[in-house]
Amino acid sequence: MAVYTDVSADDLTEFLSRYDIGKLRSYKGIAEGVENSNFLVHTDGGNFILTLYEKRVAEQDLPFFLGLMEHLAARGITCPQPVKNKMGGMLGRIAGRPAAMVTFLDGLWIRKPNAGHCAAVGEALARLHLAARDFPIRRPNALSVDSWRPLYEHAGARGDSVRPGLCNEIVQELDVLEKFWPRDLPDGVIHADLFPDNVFFLGDRLSGLIDFYFACTDTLAYDVAICLNCWCFEPDHSYNVTKGRALLKAYMKVRALSEQERAALPMLCRGAAMRFLLTRLVDWLAVPEGALVKPKDPLEYFRKLRFHQSVASASDYGFES
Amino acid sequence: MAVYTDVSADDLTEFLSRYDIGKLRSYKGIAEGVENSNFLVHTDGGNFILTLYEKRVAEQDLPFFLGLMEHLAARGITCPQPVKNKMGGMLGRIAGRPAAMVTFLDGLWIRKPNAGHCAAVGEALARLHLAARDFPIRRPNALSVDSWRPLYEHAGARGDSVRPGLCNEIVQELDVLEKFWPRDLPDGVIHADLFPDNVFFLGDRLSGLIDFYFACTDTLAYDVAICLNCWCFEPDHSYNVTKGRALLKAYMKVRALSEQERAALPMLCRGAAMRFLLTRLVDWLAVPEGALVKPKDPLEYFRKLRFHQSVASASDYGFES
Repeated sequence: MAVYTDVSADDLTEFLSRYDIGKLRSYKGIAEGVENSNFLVHTDGGNFILTLYEKRVAEQDLPFFLGLMEHLAARGITCPQPVKNKMGGMLGRIAGRPAAMVTFLDGLWIRKPNAGHCAAVGEALARLHLAARDFPIRRPNALSVDSWRPLYEHAGARGDSVRPGLCNEIVQELDVLEKFWPRDLPDGVIHADLFPDNVFFLGDRLSGLIDFYFACTDTLAYDVAICLNCWCFEPDHSYNVTKGRALLKAYMKVRALSEQERAALPMLCRGAAMRFLLTRLVDWLAVPEGALVKPKDPLEYFRKLRFHQSVASASDYGFES
Repeated sequence: MAVYTDVSADDLTEFLSRYDIGKLRSYKGIAEGVENSNFLVHTDGGNFILTLYEKRVAEQDLPFFLGLMEHLAARGITCPQPVKNKMGGMLGRIAGRPAAMVTFLDGLWIRKPNAGHCAAVGEALARLHLAARDFPIRRPNALSVDSWRPLYEHAGARGDSVRPGLCNEIVQELDVLEKFWPRDLPDGVIHADLFPDNVFFLGDRLSGLIDFYFACTDTLAYDVAICLNCWCFEPDHSYNVTKGRALLKAYMKVRALSEQERAALPMLCRGAAMRFLLTRLVDWLAVPEGALVKPKDPLEYFRKLRFHQSVASASDYGFES
């Protein structure tokens, strides 16, 4: 959570003069988003989120992200909708950064999801996959299987300082993942980061999906595997098969999973756990001693990986026979 | 800027059930407030700020702060107004912290104030002083002259690591301030922290005052001295007498300053500069090496102190003869 770049009222007023959303009434930096600076902006035209893209987001990817949100919103997916400026463009600049305005979505994210929430996420994920079928831009997943070994080598041998023996276990798992990774399953646009804090609810109704800045073109069933990892485990890291069943069933009501996709699920889940284990490990090791902000625990995903390694078959995730 | 305590949607929903402001629709942690955790809360009833009071705010002071905001708002001062719960109380608890909801104020804070903004602040400050005349609770200023030497001793000899010779200059100045501090001028409620980021404007019109968590009972003219320090210097630390004149003239249109108050102004300005020099110095020295958040530069107020020491008489601040 962060605001990396300060924005002055004068700069923002000038920026907004290029849009048709009325005068600036207030703005606040918000404590959300690990990669970018975000402001909640109130104008005569309503509430908006202004995002300043910081270094970690590649500027050439912005047309993919913004175009995708526009594409999905036009097809009935409730997600932030980029606001077009008077020239019809979605991308501007402020305080030396590329920046875009999107509509503000009401909703709350669920700290303790139940099976009903998991079902709602499964359905929304499948709808997203279908709605994006005709999205014309492709963006390879920079955080898929081929990137994991370099990522591990970046963290290097220091992994053992987090947990003795961790390095060895990661290397062995990377050997398996690289050898058996399913490469010919149906692909398309995936969200790739649909964690609970990126899904809003109003009451029990899913009211919106946010944060498309990891979205990319990859195996659709891998997105399902990511959601099983981040929605269907309990705080003690045990897998809740009731939640898994709810998520999978709701997904398949909208988009069927083929025999091949189902069979690949354990390996896809191992990969998803590895991806979050590695990025968290790198963040964990990058934080200086004594820093105030504590990064997320990488070992949460090590424990989830252990579960996936122990799975006998895809049915353990809760597929109904 | 910070959110020290996370609040779950469940906890917040339960908290809001004690108020008559409708259902929760969204909330975001906002990157404002050095002492507390702040959330922008959107309900059916509108926008509110929820503040969780962290350790640095004494719980017994909260009736003063909340009561003052209510008192001022009832007398036409635009400031956040505490929302009463169904029991008529203004103070609640959430996530183990004392907490209060206040109304949301539209407005922007001015990064580069001009003389017009300074005049608006002078007028608003005088109106605040008058509106609080009959406020019944007293709260001594914990950051006035008697606290400065202990504060300096807390930072200790490490001050010289910020600037060689700084310690000696501070000690000499403390000797002067303790000896000549004006102790029998008119007192009342002062804001005590009316920096530009605590004053909102919409266009050229002052639209609200916020952050009353340093407010206390102290010398009224000391509040004027604080404002001269934080509104009337240029980025190069030179005093802008045009801005000072605008602020003082607008203040005195609403509340006259006596001969004694005017004569004391140079000493009050030295004290105000010392107060911010010392608290910034303590914060500066408390930050661990390599931390991401850089505290405010204490030497800004050392340079302002130098100006005040050089002043021949109060007229140098811009009083019109």
